[in-house]
Amino acid sequence: MNAQIITIGDEILIGQIIDTNSAWMAQQLNVVGISVTEIITCKDDRESILSAVNRALSQGDLVFTTGGLGPTKDDITKKTLADLFGFPMAFHQPTYDIIEYLITRHGRTLTEAHKAQALMPVGIQHLENQMGTAPGMWFEKDGKVLISMPGVPYEMKYIMEHQAIPKIKAKFKTKIIRHRTVLTVGQGESKIAEIIADFEDSLAKDNIKLAYLPNIGKVRLRLSVTGDDATALDALLDVKVEKLKALIPEYIFGYGKTSFEEAFGEILKSRNLTVATAESCTGGLIAHKITSISGASHYFHGSVIAYDNRIKINVLGVNPMTLKNHGAVSEQTVREMVQGVLNVMETDYAIAVSGIAGPNGGTPEKPVGTIWVAVGNHKEIRTHKLLLSKDRLKNIQYTSTFALNFLRRMIIGI
Amino acid sequence: MNAQIITIGDEILIGQIIDTNSAWMAQQLNVVGISVTEIITCKDDRESILSAVNRALSQGDLVFTTGGLGPTKDDITKKTLADLFGFPMAFHQPTYDIIEYLITRHGRTLTEAHKAQALMPVGIQHLENQMGTAPGMWFEKDGKVLISMPGVPYEMKYIMEHQAIPKIKAKFKTKIIRHRTVLTVGQGESKIAEIIADFEDSLAKDNIKLAYLPNIGKVRLRLSVTGDDATALDALLDVKVEKLKALIPEYIFGYGKTSFEEAFGEILKSRNLTVATAESCTGGLIAHKITSISGASHYFHGSVIAYDNRIKINVLGVNPMTLKNHGAVSEQTVREMVQGVLNVMETDYAIAVSGIAGPNGGTPEKPVGTIWVAVGNHKEIRTHKLLLSKDRLKNIQYTSTFALNFLRRMIIGI
Repeated sequence: MNAQIITIGDEILIGQIIDTNSAWMAQQLNVVGISVTEIITCKDDRESILSAVNRALSQGDLVFTTGGLGPTKDDITKKTLADLFGFPMAFHQPTYDIIEYLITRHGRTLTEAHKAQALMPVGIQHLENQMGTAPGMWFEKDGKVLISMPGVPYEMKYIMEHQAIPKIKAKFKTKIIRHRTVLTVGQGESKIAEIIADFEDSLAKDNIKLAYLPNIGKVRLRLSVTGDDATALDALLDVKVEKLKALIPEYIFGYGKTSFEEAFGEILKSRNLTVATAESCTGGLIAHKITSISGASHYFHGSVIAYDNRIKINVLGVNPMTLKNHGAVSEQTVREMVQGVLNVMETDYAIAVSGIAGPNGGTPEKPVGTIWVAVGNHKEIRTHKLLLSKDRLKNIQYTSTFALNFLRRMIIGI
Repeated sequence: MNAQIITIGDEILIGQIIDTNSAWMAQQLNVVGISVTEIITCKDDRESILSAVNRALSQGDLVFTTGGLGPTKDDITKKTLADLFGFPMAFHQPTYDIIEYLITRHGRTLTEAHKAQALMPVGIQHLENQMGTAPGMWFEKDGKVLISMPGVPYEMKYIMEHQAIPKIKAKFKTKIIRHRTVLTVGQGESKIAEIIADFEDSLAKDNIKLAYLPNIGKVRLRLSVTGDDATALDALLDVKVEKLKALIPEYIFGYGKTSFEEAFGEILKSRNLTVATAESCTGGLIAHKITSISGASHYFHGSVIAYDNRIKINVLGVNPMTLKNHGAVSEQTVREMVQGVLNVMETDYAIAVSGIAGPNGGTPEKPVGTIWVAVGNHKEIRTHKLLLSKDRLKNIQYTSTFALNFLRRMIIGI
């Protein structure tokens, strides 16, 4: 079945806060077989709320609202929804008792605003909120259900988990949705689409949907299917994932929620290998990516960020003549940087990068975006020249992922 | 004037990604006097797009859409919008040329999907996208404007900043909104609010709004005022900024869009000073932050990421007895790391960090989140112990900003 989410709040519309509630709610609803078909963020006034709620109710039988409740709001949301459902407002002693308990427990005193919160629509079902003073409200009429919750994330989450989801599962017979996410690196969205075109076409007959979710240097492929039999759906998706794996084996680094840096670390850890980096234009981002994973100390010794050429010479042992004859941005230099950092950091493998990240500093022979990457060990060094854009941060980010993947490919032998 | 934003994409509706585009767009639009009154996230199909766009166009004269473009999409968005505005589709050579250039430059080959991307609605204005293959599209009819952009954040941001916003400012006469953003570092939002409480109260009589925009370790304070006379509004805000400056001088590092890393670099550059870092638990993030600024090579020599204790000893010259007696996470160790990296990198100043970023690895005496920071030169070293959370990435990020600010304060003498 379908659902709509309405987020009430001016803070989101001025860009002051990002709406993270809707994504979390959509995930929870997906698990119980409910698809969110629209999310509306509207202003905290009667007209805007009415317009958004009417639209949502016209599209389906299940609507969620968050926000517009709580002691500092003017109760516009509550009154508007009560009017819409034709419910009168009345003082509700149990709600008042809970508010009184929550407020006085913390040694604070009840304000008029708190008391006004105990005015509730008659006819709703109350959804207990142990995290705050505003309860959730279950409005129901003519087969349509609207669930109103506060916008504070942990209050909304409490009500969803403990109250709303169990009641929805009991009331509506929902379908089951299953997902598999295949994580790729090192190839663009369109090239992957080309390789797996036939596979993608074949998904339609099983009603499986494929989504491409690209990020800098990486693409996530998500397969989704809806049905009644969880075991059958899982089996179907497992077969499809195996097929996908056979088509693009070298680009897949993991599944589900694994990060690329985790997968990279796992390869080193499982082989008992160590790594170090020598970075010029990436300025430490490769090291930061590696060390963003807890336990990186098992396989990461350290890095030399050699921005100044003297550091390349003095710390990494790059030959001054190499820099003079070929320049800092050259295959020869990154080769010597790998050799140098292998010695300094005493690791099995090393990554080296030198380039012109931009937006300034290019020459006709070496334009902005020219970046040399080398990976290797004491026996073999692989090199690659990237020609990227003028966007400094994007160049640094893309190169960092490329370099990690370049080494990953060498280690796993592809 | 008002605007509506439509985010097209199933990924958001299943909660796989969070919509950060809308908040960013709302902020940018606010700055030029445009209020976003509704955000709709809809499915990537013709009917849903039509329904959302029709609703948005009925509410105002300016609508933005993001998403639903790109080489692997079925061009549903483009075709749907073209139909809605009554524009036919036709092959567009300049778009094709740009796509061809972007793809072949990276040594990749053009696919059919790329070629299909060059089919564009006739009658739109093309909004250049230097960050990707799908251009922005400016649809206009009967005084209504719809701007369609790809959903990839850096592509959308490029089009907004370089194309959409300048064209909107030229076309629509908007009320004048003036802003001043005061950038602070090193103090929390609630403490700042306490210090400037009287100042904040005094803003109401001039209809000036104050927004707190916190980020890890930093808070931006934005003053906004709306009116008709730009000169008068500017003068009013200038007076307020001066008052704010007098209240919290030591926390302000800049104004407007300056990043903290830029301000940090400016302090070094203007004083002709150089810096290096010796990082353990921050793993290169401080170096990455410094080198995220173009021209950092003027004041940054390099870093030693000394994750392994042997690197602290062999490269930085930390005394093995110091590590043995006090541990790697100690005041003594970070002091010696500063001295060591000053020598290795031959800089005027250095930053050193050693700590337990977490979530594992703590002891009763040194719990997770214990991080020692040292900054200094050959004459003086300042040290500070941070006690942070168990959140690894947050600890790394907070410490990196703290360390840069710690050195900044030393250099400017506060």
